[in-house]
Amino acid sequence: MTQRRRWVEYAESLKPQLEAIPQSPVSIVRPVSDSDCFLRWRMDVEANGTDLSKRLFRKGDQFILDFEGHRTGNLEFHLVGEGRSVDSPVRLKLTFGEVPGDVAEPFHPYRGQLSSAWLPEEIITIDFLPQKVRMPRRYAFRYVKVEVVDTSPNFGVRFFDVKAIALTSAPGQPAMLPAGTSDWIVRVDQVALATLRDCMQTTFEDGPRRDQRLWIGDLRLQAQASYVTFPNHDLVKRCLYLFAGLPRESDGFLPACVFEKPTPSTTDTFILDYAALYGAIVLDYARATNNIATARDLWPVAHRQLEILFQYVDEQGLFQIPKGYWAFIDWNVKLDRSAAMQGVIIYSGRRLCELAELTGNTAQIKTYSALLDKMTKVAHEKYYSSDLKVCISGPDKQVSWASQAWLTLAGCLSKEEASEALRRAVFEDKTSIQPATAYLYHHVTQAMIECGMRREALQLIRKYWGGMVEAGADTFWEAYDPNDSNFSPYGDVHINSFCHAWSCTPTYFFRASRLIE
Amino acid sequence: MTQRRRWVEYAESLKPQLEAIPQSPVSIVRPVSDSDCFLRWRMDVEANGTDLSKRLFRKGDQFILDFEGHRTGNLEFHLVGEGRSVDSPVRLKLTFGEVPGDVAEPFHPYRGQLSSAWLPEEIITIDFLPQKVRMPRRYAFRYVKVEVVDTSPNFGVRFFDVKAIALTSAPGQPAMLPAGTSDWIVRVDQVALATLRDCMQTTFEDGPRRDQRLWIGDLRLQAQASYVTFPNHDLVKRCLYLFAGLPRESDGFLPACVFEKPTPSTTDTFILDYAALYGAIVLDYARATNNIATARDLWPVAHRQLEILFQYVDEQGLFQIPKGYWAFIDWNVKLDRSAAMQGVIIYSGRRLCELAELTGNTAQIKTYSALLDKMTKVAHEKYYSSDLKVCISGPDKQVSWASQAWLTLAGCLSKEEASEALRRAVFEDKTSIQPATAYLYHHVTQAMIECGMRREALQLIRKYWGGMVEAGADTFWEAYDPNDSNFSPYGDVHINSFCHAWSCTPTYFFRASRLIE
Repeated sequence: MTQRRRWVEYAESLKPQLEAIPQSPVSIVRPVSDSDCFLRWRMDVEANGTDLSKRLFRKGDQFILDFEGHRTGNLEFHLVGEGRSVDSPVRLKLTFGEVPGDVAEPFHPYRGQLSSAWLPEEIITIDFLPQKVRMPRRYAFRYVKVEVVDTSPNFGVRFFDVKAIALTSAPGQPAMLPAGTSDWIVRVDQVALATLRDCMQTTFEDGPRRDQRLWIGDLRLQAQASYVTFPNHDLVKRCLYLFAGLPRESDGFLPACVFEKPTPSTTDTFILDYAALYGAIVLDYARATNNIATARDLWPVAHRQLEILFQYVDEQGLFQIPKGYWAFIDWNVKLDRSAAMQGVIIYSGRRLCELAELTGNTAQIKTYSALLDKMTKVAHEKYYSSDLKVCISGPDKQVSWASQAWLTLAGCLSKEEASEALRRAVFEDKTSIQPATAYLYHHVTQAMIECGMRREALQLIRKYWGGMVEAGADTFWEAYDPNDSNFSPYGDVHINSFCHAWSCTPTYFFRASRLIE
Repeated sequence: MTQRRRWVEYAESLKPQLEAIPQSPVSIVRPVSDSDCFLRWRMDVEANGTDLSKRLFRKGDQFILDFEGHRTGNLEFHLVGEGRSVDSPVRLKLTFGEVPGDVAEPFHPYRGQLSSAWLPEEIITIDFLPQKVRMPRRYAFRYVKVEVVDTSPNFGVRFFDVKAIALTSAPGQPAMLPAGTSDWIVRVDQVALATLRDCMQTTFEDGPRRDQRLWIGDLRLQAQASYVTFPNHDLVKRCLYLFAGLPRESDGFLPACVFEKPTPSTTDTFILDYAALYGAIVLDYARATNNIATARDLWPVAHRQLEILFQYVDEQGLFQIPKGYWAFIDWNVKLDRSAAMQGVIIYSGRRLCELAELTGNTAQIKTYSALLDKMTKVAHEKYYSSDLKVCISGPDKQVSWASQAWLTLAGCLSKEEASEALRRAVFEDKTSIQPATAYLYHHVTQAMIECGMRREALQLIRKYWGGMVEAGADTFWEAYDPNDSNFSPYGDVHINSFCHAWSCTPTYFFRASRLIE
């Protein structure tokens, strides 16, 4: 108990000072409905951003500012009243948009299942003018719509020095990709970097618009991407210690996510694959930083996860998803997760063995090697179909991208088997279960790279992430359905997050895996 | 110029530290439409205020708190999330009510002419729970309605430690009225005191809900009342210096009001009678405090007003309201102001002479006595009808309460003429022009006292101010029409102010004039 509290305190001591980068709006824009635009709206430039202070706004007037790029941060401006008498407060409504639809379409009636409190809109009243106004919360936005709800008949308002104060714990600017890199890769890389940068706050957030939460799964991908782009080792360390200090009290099992604010606190959300992968993050961290002491400190936490999870491996060597627990892998509800979970556990076990080696803890995992070999063997027997040349999962012998990816990453297939299986599932079998998230796209891409399918991996990145860029993404989205820009996993597109951390990994592949052309 | 700036700086140095008095809500109430209530709604008690934290609120829930008295101040509370997971912000709507209708009736659609930004409603979003929430602005309220716009499906919210932080620069508690004073007087006195207290902030405000502005006319009555109730001499001094430092640059004429925030600034609103009365406030101040030095310092400002106004006295000795200037007297648009203005100028001139005497400046006003005598004489000739035994004003020989009051206060009538005129205009002549404001009610009452009509003055107070108390006033209102609780000078009752400073003077009459029974 005391150690856990110490760990949380240590994590808090590592809370980064955010860099605050002020930026003026580039232009004043007007949304125009346009069926040629994937995002439904074209943003026509009305005027230069510097022209804003030339306009006097009265009751009912509005304008939309474009910062020409996604920002996580604050908004401030200087508001001046002008007229016969500035004799009342000013009431403004502000709407923050990551995409044009946020500021071009009404949020209400809202049809989503998630809390409407996430809708990025505010009504504020400023009592005394002139006044410097700093919006009270942090927002995720490229666009800001300002509606003048009311002044008084005696005056209008003028906006000076509107500034987005972009916040990030991402340090500096990553190196350029090598000269001659294809344009599309450079563009995808830029969008990936912006995504990561805007999710790097006082923790690695899943998305700055909504949830703003630290998840193990997201953390792993963000940390990997950060090492080769925006290295902030203390931020990774902070997140690792937050989890270490906030496990389930009874047995030390790690929750899938923790809340950072107002004070770090644990949750009762557990995801089997996330807990398993904690050790892999520690291993990545140790390798990226050569900080073995921290890895040694966190070893018991990483070890504990596999100790718990191995309890659900049956005599045959098959991981059996325990009732009441959540195996995530991806959001696709049709996915049978048995094969992929077997892969995740083996993958995580192998990483833990490496971590034991690195930290001098091999004595604690003497039985692991044999167990993992057994699990690997039975995985091949049970989940790989030599007839179909793909991995199958569940009673219906379901073919999915997830099963191929995770059994490949776990080393359950030969290189040839893996590449053949991935090719079939991803490019040939139109009925195979596809990913619903970039999180799984990442693992499929990683699996392709590991079995020598670098060209196909790049093809996949171009189609998925490149597709988002073509569709108008400034940062990578939480949800992307190329056939429906209104798709939302939550029943209302206006609650979607358009800057979502686990979508940032193309920059990792371009840089760590040198997957460029 | 430099002296004026110094005066403003001096005024700022006198800005009082407000007393902050926390108070818990007394009860949770539910408005019930009730035609027996003047204010249209009965407030039924649902539960004790201390029961609030026993309730868990979810999306769409609401409650109304009753602080059982009017407050000017802040609101704070501790908000706690409770449920499976506190996984989203909370959005609340708060509405502050001075009267039941504010929280029982929708503000929208709003039909008023004044800025809707004055409507006391806020939507706030609290990102992280538990959280201490302090509402960002100052409000005027007895009731607070809280609507939970949204939490998330996973949790509800509980409110702890809701506190109104009442703000005032009124010191201590005035002495009780003498034992045996009639109940109705005690009640009117209490309401008057609450009104004054809640308008005493860092200036004497006209009303804490709306405008919140320092006017010469309101200041004079508030200062008079304060000397016998909540003496804060520095606050009066501060206000006198604010005006002194912010006159019209060209000639030193005083504006009718100044803005205190964000920094003291002048206005282009001039009211002839207000400027005239500035010297009377200085005189009252000097007498209440024996601070002759301040009166001497401000003498040139007071003197300047009459110097300017005497320019509009014609050869006959009649004050001619100059074109483009505003003679206020009262809000009643039907009122012919000639007679009343003659009275105000004479009254103000007499007070200025007294001030000259007190400050050793008689050399500067050598001509005043003769001029005032001439004005007094012609006033009687021109405005007093010996036939009708009332004062008349304008081409239609209009009879009004205002003319009788101000010519009485100016000493233009004998005691007998004055009491007869007041009796006829106020109690007998149903067609005489009545006051639309408590400001004029005050002067009518004062005039009655001065000509020996103490019983009638008390009768007037009982009917007007006592009527408001009977109608449910916790503080005296800006507008009161006994026949229509929805009456508003601004087109919408929800923009009315229900705590308005110039209505506070019954306590002055009870205490300074010992007008009690």
